[in-house]
Amino acid sequence: MTTTVRAIGAAAEGAKMAPMDIVRRTPEDTDVRIAITHSGICHSDIHTVRGEWGDRPYPLVPGHEIVGTVLEIGSAVTKYKVGDIVGVGVIVDSCGECDNCVNKDENYCTGPVGPRLTYGEAEPQLPGQVTQGGYAQEIVTTENFVYRIPEGLDLAGVAPLLCAGITVYSPLKHWGAGPGKTVGVVGIGGLGHMAVKFSHALGAHTVALTSSPEKVALGTSLGADEVLVTSDKEAMKGARQKFDLIISTLPGDHDMNPYLDLLTLDGTYVIVGAVNDMTQPFSLPKLMMRRRSIAGSQIGGTVETQEMLDFCGTHNIVADVEVIKADYINEAYDRVVAGDVQFRFVIDATTI
Amino acid sequence: MTTTVRAIGAAAEGAKMAPMDIVRRTPEDTDVRIAITHSGICHSDIHTVRGEWGDRPYPLVPGHEIVGTVLEIGSAVTKYKVGDIVGVGVIVDSCGECDNCVNKDENYCTGPVGPRLTYGEAEPQLPGQVTQGGYAQEIVTTENFVYRIPEGLDLAGVAPLLCAGITVYSPLKHWGAGPGKTVGVVGIGGLGHMAVKFSHALGAHTVALTSSPEKVALGTSLGADEVLVTSDKEAMKGARQKFDLIISTLPGDHDMNPYLDLLTLDGTYVIVGAVNDMTQPFSLPKLMMRRRSIAGSQIGGTVETQEMLDFCGTHNIVADVEVIKADYINEAYDRVVAGDVQFRFVIDATTI
Repeated sequence: MTTTVRAIGAAAEGAKMAPMDIVRRTPEDTDVRIAITHSGICHSDIHTVRGEWGDRPYPLVPGHEIVGTVLEIGSAVTKYKVGDIVGVGVIVDSCGECDNCVNKDENYCTGPVGPRLTYGEAEPQLPGQVTQGGYAQEIVTTENFVYRIPEGLDLAGVAPLLCAGITVYSPLKHWGAGPGKTVGVVGIGGLGHMAVKFSHALGAHTVALTSSPEKVALGTSLGADEVLVTSDKEAMKGARQKFDLIISTLPGDHDMNPYLDLLTLDGTYVIVGAVNDMTQPFSLPKLMMRRRSIAGSQIGGTVETQEMLDFCGTHNIVADVEVIKADYINEAYDRVVAGDVQFRFVIDATTI
Repeated sequence: MTTTVRAIGAAAEGAKMAPMDIVRRTPEDTDVRIAITHSGICHSDIHTVRGEWGDRPYPLVPGHEIVGTVLEIGSAVTKYKVGDIVGVGVIVDSCGECDNCVNKDENYCTGPVGPRLTYGEAEPQLPGQVTQGGYAQEIVTTENFVYRIPEGLDLAGVAPLLCAGITVYSPLKHWGAGPGKTVGVVGIGGLGHMAVKFSHALGAHTVALTSSPEKVALGTSLGADEVLVTSDKEAMKGARQKFDLIISTLPGDHDMNPYLDLLTLDGTYVIVGAVNDMTQPFSLPKLMMRRRSIAGSQIGGTVETQEMLDFCGTHNIVADVEVIKADYINEAYDRVVAGDVQFRFVIDATTI
């Protein structure tokens, strides 16, 4: 038994995004069926359907920043009822048995398939089909990977929290961003603007780093205590050894040395914005002379994702978004690639 | 007032090591004058006098793994008395005022000159002169950077603890090596053999990693629970995600990817054996998919160095050394460069 819903997807690698029908499974005992109201556009959606991150199955519907209303619940669902406002993020399942899953670090699941992504991975309940994402009217998924959205938040701005938000919240928490700490955020974009908001709300002295002098006022408006223009060599020199933590949202290979210089003893440079090889040399003495670290982090686990959403409810934090209708998707994709969005597009999924 | 003592040093960059006279300051209030009995040869001594690590002042006497007997103490010295067996390591002073010094992380001193190295740095008490190292009959230095040597240890084997020992002990402690943890040590040499001994004594499951199949028995004899031959692709694959911490003593630029694969969630790859640029690409996904880190560390602070020596006293740990007479120094240097020593040369300083 399945349901057919309308969606927007790519018929093949590199194809223009276009309306299509996809199949959703009928809710099983622990499943929640959600009427999607908002679906964020993440740059990774674009990388994926354009084949920049390797082969994927097609047709493929992206989208892993999903907000909607519960339409139906399985017989064993306990956390949600019909009418609840909920979210779905980057992962819709995991093995549940490995140490990381037991510890609710499902984003680091070491099971045979690892974390099951919201789109483009095998869908065991529909043999031969793959998971399809959030650019659709509905989604059906297990309640364990569904999140409660706090009341009072703008729902379009909530959607990007499910990927961009948790991607930066998790490392901020893991590496101790808070009062008495100085946190840098490199890049003021989709990820970076969320990192600045979170770091500020967590009580850290927050410094936004940008290569664009024209973004200084923007960084301050987001909550940065300071904005450091990385092309200003004197300012960069004056900021050396000041940072306990730097969250780098730079989207690709880059020279890490100027950022390593900024870290104090035991400081960490955490990369969350790229998935490539790092090919530019870095200086070991820069690590050794202050016991600095270079690290990576990806999204967050289920408990931490709910914690992040609740934190947003308490502090009234959402992403800054531009809401679009479904038929604007291809223009939106081009504008994301051009960096021409402040800071995230969200599809009004009722227009799909 | 000064004293002239015999030493072995380089008259100029790249010169053969040869006997020479050097000047030591007369002990000031907090100084200790030490009759050196043993002086370890560290590969960094060779890099330095051969000009491989940049310009240095000459004539220059290397040596920062020093053991000897207190000959004389300044009027304000409280920790030592004449006749005590003591050690001196890589640092002989620091600013004493920065946060790191106050926290006894003097090895990460952020003062104007940073940690003052045992040889080749300005010697404020002897204007125009530089600090001269341990290949000498005597050394005079402040008691704050002198360590008590526990009774019962072989003193030749103690000398390398002051550099090789603390260089690996500090990161093992900082990153939590102990019961329930799996620790890898890459390279079974001067640093690596100490790391295996310490990790084992700290109670960690200890795995020595070597590219040399003929070193398996050696690794086990040092206390490794397992020895992993890095050229054995199947063994390396089977060891993936098993390690909480890897101490890398590899002496230069290398491909980190095979080692990153071995780390579990939150595992750290700590480089202590090299001071170069890392130029080989590494995979960000390997960091991100398990929140792994790459870090550096250098020697240790004064409290930790004394702790390390006391730990060695408790567990009867010393370096494995080959004791040489002073006139063998140039052959010894060539053999260090060729990797032909098990594991550290120590000069019988009474032959200088």
